[in-house]
Amino acid sequence: MTMQTTIAAPQAPVVPPRSRLRPLGQSEVRITGGFWGDRQAVNAAGTLVHIGSRLESEGWLPNFDLAVAGTLPEGRRGREFSDSEVYKYLEALAWEIGRTSDPALEERFRAVVARVAAAQEPDGYLNTMFGRPGQGARWSDLEWGHELYCLGHLFQAAVARARTRPGADDGLLEIARRAADLVCREFGPDGRDGICGHAEVEVGLAELARVTGEHRYLEQARLFIERHGRGTLRDIEWGRKYFQDDIPVRDAEVLRGHAVRANYLSAGATDVAVDTGDTGLLDALRRQWERTVARRTYVTGGQGSHHQDEAFGEDWELPADRAYSETCAGVGSIMFAWRLLLAGGDPRHADLIERTLYNVVATSPAPDGRSFFYANTLHQRVPGVPADPDATSPRASSSLRAPWFEVSCCPPNVARTLASLDAYLATSDDEGVQLHQYAPATVRTTLDDGRAIAFDVETDYPASGRIRVISRADAATGAPWTLALRVPSWAEGARLRVTPVAGPAEEREAKPGAVEVRRAFRAGDVVELELPMAPRLTAPDERIDAVRGCLVIERGPEVFALESADLGPAGVDDVADVALAPGTTPVERDGRIWIAVVPHGRSDAAWPYADAGGQPQEAASVDVPLVPYHEWAERGPSTMRVWIPAST
Amino acid sequence: MTMQTTIAAPQAPVVPPRSRLRPLGQSEVRITGGFWGDRQAVNAAGTLVHIGSRLESEGWLPNFDLAVAGTLPEGRRGREFSDSEVYKYLEALAWEIGRTSDPALEERFRAVVARVAAAQEPDGYLNTMFGRPGQGARWSDLEWGHELYCLGHLFQAAVARARTRPGADDGLLEIARRAADLVCREFGPDGRDGICGHAEVEVGLAELARVTGEHRYLEQARLFIERHGRGTLRDIEWGRKYFQDDIPVRDAEVLRGHAVRANYLSAGATDVAVDTGDTGLLDALRRQWERTVARRTYVTGGQGSHHQDEAFGEDWELPADRAYSETCAGVGSIMFAWRLLLAGGDPRHADLIERTLYNVVATSPAPDGRSFFYANTLHQRVPGVPADPDATSPRASSSLRAPWFEVSCCPPNVARTLASLDAYLATSDDEGVQLHQYAPATVRTTLDDGRAIAFDVETDYPASGRIRVISRADAATGAPWTLALRVPSWAEGARLRVTPVAGPAEEREAKPGAVEVRRAFRAGDVVELELPMAPRLTAPDERIDAVRGCLVIERGPEVFALESADLGPAGVDDVADVALAPGTTPVERDGRIWIAVVPHGRSDAAWPYADAGGQPQEAASVDVPLVPYHEWAERGPSTMRVWIPAST
Repeated sequence: MTMQTTIAAPQAPVVPPRSRLRPLGQSEVRITGGFWGDRQAVNAAGTLVHIGSRLESEGWLPNFDLAVAGTLPEGRRGREFSDSEVYKYLEALAWEIGRTSDPALEERFRAVVARVAAAQEPDGYLNTMFGRPGQGARWSDLEWGHELYCLGHLFQAAVARARTRPGADDGLLEIARRAADLVCREFGPDGRDGICGHAEVEVGLAELARVTGEHRYLEQARLFIERHGRGTLRDIEWGRKYFQDDIPVRDAEVLRGHAVRANYLSAGATDVAVDTGDTGLLDALRRQWERTVARRTYVTGGQGSHHQDEAFGEDWELPADRAYSETCAGVGSIMFAWRLLLAGGDPRHADLIERTLYNVVATSPAPDGRSFFYANTLHQRVPGVPADPDATSPRASSSLRAPWFEVSCCPPNVARTLASLDAYLATSDDEGVQLHQYAPATVRTTLDDGRAIAFDVETDYPASGRIRVISRADAATGAPWTLALRVPSWAEGARLRVTPVAGPAEEREAKPGAVEVRRAFRAGDVVELELPMAPRLTAPDERIDAVRGCLVIERGPEVFALESADLGPAGVDDVADVALAPGTTPVERDGRIWIAVVPHGRSDAAWPYADAGGQPQEAASVDVPLVPYHEWAERGPSTMRVWIPAST
Repeated sequence: MTMQTTIAAPQAPVVPPRSRLRPLGQSEVRITGGFWGDRQAVNAAGTLVHIGSRLESEGWLPNFDLAVAGTLPEGRRGREFSDSEVYKYLEALAWEIGRTSDPALEERFRAVVARVAAAQEPDGYLNTMFGRPGQGARWSDLEWGHELYCLGHLFQAAVARARTRPGADDGLLEIARRAADLVCREFGPDGRDGICGHAEVEVGLAELARVTGEHRYLEQARLFIERHGRGTLRDIEWGRKYFQDDIPVRDAEVLRGHAVRANYLSAGATDVAVDTGDTGLLDALRRQWERTVARRTYVTGGQGSHHQDEAFGEDWELPADRAYSETCAGVGSIMFAWRLLLAGGDPRHADLIERTLYNVVATSPAPDGRSFFYANTLHQRVPGVPADPDATSPRASSSLRAPWFEVSCCPPNVARTLASLDAYLATSDDEGVQLHQYAPATVRTTLDDGRAIAFDVETDYPASGRIRVISRADAATGAPWTLALRVPSWAEGARLRVTPVAGPAEEREAKPGAVEVRRAFRAGDVVELELPMAPRLTAPDERIDAVRGCLVIERGPEVFALESADLGPAGVDDVADVALAPGTTPVERDGRIWIAVVPHGRSDAAWPYADAGGQPQEAASVDVPLVPYHEWAERGPSTMRVWIPAST
């Protein structure tokens, strides 16, 4: 049985056959520059080249050649999940090819696919770590083996390729289908009653069902989702919640356990809920997202409070100094939130995506795109040691970005996100188009009823808060359509101005949420949204113990950080030595944000706990500049804090 | 070459041949009841029985029988360090036999020693995990194998036995000597240039040298100490500081890495520094202790801020909710501080010992002595799940004590500490006796010049702050001696009263540090120290980010905690829902400490970060009682916090 897809699939990462909003893909939306355009250029010229080179030199791609040569397990290099990095790389290449049609990338893509294809076994099995003499048996270690996880990434790569180059003869989609058929045979209703310790196959299968029309794949994804929380995985020191195998998905109240696993699972569950019409499951996921965002998410959008198990903490457990906030958890959070946005249209999901893009995804790569943060701390206490550019690093041990990791999931996760980012800007519905993220862009699409829509977005956001939408097409039928612009939750006081080519301009307040302009647009009509970009002092909920008594400076979607490199004027060399001056407010001057600080805590008591009730000391304040958090650690080792103590 | 010991060895865990203070052992000091006497009784009747039973049922003691039977590695149970728990159990038994001469314990002790003895190989090697066909080769995994670590505990057990039953024919000392000789051959100046990943053999060898007079053992301990920080162990994700193999001991500035390893190493290094007259090393260790106490120690005396690597955090990194504060790190801290106290006489070392005894060591075991905290959090966010009494638990996953752990170092570590606690109360020097810890006790000793000293201590400390010392002997020669009483650093306003059997009483202030009474004591002379026991509100150094804006309530040496079980009067059921009422001070009433609280943080915002500058709400305050931290979690699952937010 196959599903009917009623509309042509956009070149986009998530394409539900039915949903509240329809994503506009790469052929409809094109980022043309600005903050994100620059990063996409670096992603193509730096990151993708770097990843391709490392996958060769680390042996992770050559592992497939060894499989073909029949010499495995001898010579195999990398961890049990290293195949997945090759698949994420392929996915990133597919989106980049969809974006730019670069023939060199196309050639590279096909060459990698050929090496992967050669390693697939006749029955569809594909993994360099399991199943051969001297290796673990297939599916013998569902907790840690990551076999299904790797296939999930293979499926996502194949979906990206099928959406960007439908009918291409490279064979990746067929590889994925053979592997998915095997998964359905092995883990179907009559097969093994198991799940993968690391969720990912669910989202891959659900999307593969959308691309192929194979209902079996969606059904298999549904089965995996339903099996979570039944305790089929072995218990471990951190409990089965690490794998989200503690509570059935539809019964859970909040995301918990390993933060990447939790988000990937939630993304897959949302796909299943939407495509099967399971509103109970969808409502449960929405509630879980809401509590996770209200109580378990950093101000950067980052998620994951524990280094030990890379996991969510309990409600309100959000240490700045031990923030794990894995880059991949940020990517996973965007995957989950984007699916909820498509399903329900709630702008709060786009708010979190924006926050996470600017403060997690943009933070990870260095300006040259060749080194990365794996974890994204909000407080660096000691200057790190520069990473050896030729070495692989542990995951999260330095204040500086590292070129590669033993567990190197984050670089290709950033790469595939940036390469597909055009497809996260806008959606359409029966009434018109919704603009969720702001970047200089062209938008060209056609509504179901044939109304052609064409507009350009001009903006230097987030440098300024002005977003100009210029209509480039006359309404074909004269029929009106609705342009909806997201107004971020922090943008109290935003203004909307509509300046038609003919007729009077109008201006009005644009409240946080979304502001709509419904009209029969004519070429040259301009809609201008002005978001207030004054820097803001933000306080945490009083239950977030780790940052009690501290404030953070934000401006637009960006969180700011204080780095030791900027403390010269204060006469100290460590962020631990300053607090915010009483009553200070941030100001913008010379293109930077400045804040007044005073000396802080330089007593040298033998025991750091003393009678309460000392008098605060008077001290002269000094202005120091801040950096956007995504730019921190670009001037060598430093100490850094996002949350700055308020003077008491 | 053997060293000359100039005085008869006391029945005590640490007996340097030369040091500023000489420990008074079990035959000189006897705890006769009170807070610690009660715990010693539970330790004997509950904990030691429980441990003995678990070592059998878990297979850790039977592993030795399997070694004898020649069937290993088949059937071996437990982790690579399980032998060490048997040795710590033997050490605890030895001290308990020294304390009570219980014949049943003596029989049990000999039976266990016989099983261990039978497993020792002809060349002295002793370990159930390595060296047999099918096992790893001896010394092949110095990072994680724990072979030398296990032997270090064997040596400490043998030392305890030799000091409490000199010349006993059980054979334990000979087992230890044979193993130590092997260690000297294998790791001596011409042997393997290696160290153990877990320090412990150093302290064991140094003490074994003291007991046997074998200088080689001290020299081997010195070699191991000097080899630390040379990078002979492989690097790991958390760096070589995990093993203290990052910086030479004499060059380090602070304790770092795994908190138990760091303290055991420092204890061994102090022994070596003292016995070799290495004042440079001793000064370095004292400085490291000072910075560790000033910046890396919890208000409970607990140490270790990371779950991931069970390690110290950076300076000021002391999260309450993720406090690891392993019970064994507390024991190790006492080992280190006690050695520094003997070496230099600084009462601050005894201050930390007292704090750690009351708030870490006393916290771990349940009232029946049959379940334990492995980690000692200062903030429990969610009520735990009761541990299955028949199961073994992971290390640190519940708010409740567990009967046994897969890594079960803590129960026998508590047991050996409590069984030897009499020997931590008092010391002597040429001038007299120093009383460091307060408990009802008898003290009988003779100074080097023959002056007989006998006094009793009567106190219900810490219930009250009154400590009465009653002289029981007339000065034989009429010569005076000095009784020094520690005045804890928190005890500002303490008073000392001397009431002789003849002559006028005198009273004076006793400032924190030590107060001395020098006189020719006559039987019946009374010295009374009155420590102020009003509950105190204590604030953290402003650089301890995790508890900024919070206060803790202390009384005497005890830290107090707020438990959800006591929140009924406040109408809430979670400690997250209350803060201290503005201006409140703790009061003592009906034998409990009470504090006023107000409701706290019950808004339900979708995003927990908002504009700074909201108005605090007015709310009626309610008095709630606190519990001593060492009594928390004795009424079932609860939430708990030691640091309570102050209202803003």
